[in-house]
Amino acid sequence: MIDGGALLKIPYGVYILSSFKDDKINAMIINSAMQVTAEPARIAVSVNKRSLTYEYILASGVFALMPLTEKIDFPFIGRFGFRSGRNFDKFAGVKYEKGVLGAPVVLENTTAVIEARADKNLDVGTHVIFAGEIKEARNICAAACLTYDYYRNVIKGKTPQGATHQ
Amino acid sequence: MIDGGALLKIPYGVYILSSFKDDKINAMIINSAMQVTAEPARIAVSVNKRSLTYEYILASGVFALMPLTEKIDFPFIGRFGFRSGRNFDKFAGVKYEKGVLGAPVVLENTTAVIEARADKNLDVGTHVIFAGEIKEARNICAAACLTYDYYRNVIKGKTPQGATHQ
Repeated sequence: MIDGGALLKIPYGVYILSSFKDDKINAMIINSAMQVTAEPARIAVSVNKRSLTYEYILASGVFALMPLTEKIDFPFIGRFGFRSGRNFDKFAGVKYEKGVLGAPVVLENTTAVIEARADKNLDVGTHVIFAGEIKEARNICAAACLTYDYYRNVIKGKTPQGATHQ
Repeated sequence: MIDGGALLKIPYGVYILSSFKDDKINAMIINSAMQVTAEPARIAVSVNKRSLTYEYILASGVFALMPLTEKIDFPFIGRFGFRSGRNFDKFAGVKYEKGVLGAPVVLENTTAVIEARADKNLDVGTHVIFAGEIKEARNICAAACLTYDYYRNVIKGKTPQGATHQ
C-alpha cells in the first residue's frame, strides 16, 4: 500500500532548472533536488526524459538550479513549468545572464543559483538523476524560498505532467 | 566560488534510514532523500559508504525511511545519528517492528515510513545514491515533521561526520 500523504512528508523546494545546447537555452520547473555529497559538493536533480531541458543537459553536461522566491506570481511559474521550450521562448522578456558554466541564470523571482557539471547520471525509468559536481553557488537575493508545500497548499498550484509527484 | 548559504536554500527533512543483513538490523540519520519518479513511485537517498547501514542496504537490497517528528529529544537523534551500529545496539529499548520488506520500522518519534527496494544505485564518491522502488508508504502519526533547518537553527543540532552537508 502506498499512501501519497506519507510521501509528502518529505519537504521540497521549487526550482528553475536550466541548461543549454550549442547556442540554444531552455529551463523547466522541478522540485526534486538535493545535495548528495559534501566533499566535493555534489547535487542531484531528477529530470523527466521527455523534457527539452533533459536533452540539453545530456548535450552540454551542465545545469543550473535556482530556488524560486515564495512571493512569486503564477504566470512566471507557468512560463517555465507549463510550456514547452520546443515551441515557446521561455526567456523572452525575462532577466537572465549566462552562468559560469554556460547555462542561463534567471535573475528575477529566484533566490540563489547552483551551477553543476552533470558528470554522473542514473536512469530511473521516466526520469534520469543527474548528480553533478557543484562549480558555483551564490545567493541572488535574501527573499524567502518557495516550498513545494506552500506552492500546493497556499498558491494552490497544479503539478505539471511528468513531475516526480502526482 | 561556493557559498554554503546558497546550498542551504534547498529544504531537507531529517530521517531515520534503516536496513538489515541476515538477522542483524541497523539504522542511521540522514537528510538527503527525495522522490525521483511518480510511476512507479521511486525514492532516492544518499548514504555514506563508511556507514554500517550502507553495507546492510547493499546486502539486503532494501531500506526503510522514516521522517522524524519535530518534537524530538536530542538523545534519540544521538542514538541513531552519532553512534555506530558496529559497537552499539541502536534499537535497544526502542519501539519498532519489522517492515514489509524486512527492514526495521521505528514506531516512536517518527511520522511515516517509506519502504523501498534499492534496485538502482549510483556511486557519487563518498556516498552512494540508492534509488529504490517504493513498495510501502504509510503514516505513523500526524505530528509535524522535523526539518533540517529546524534541527540546525532551533534545536541547534550538530552535523554528523560524513554527512552530505558540512
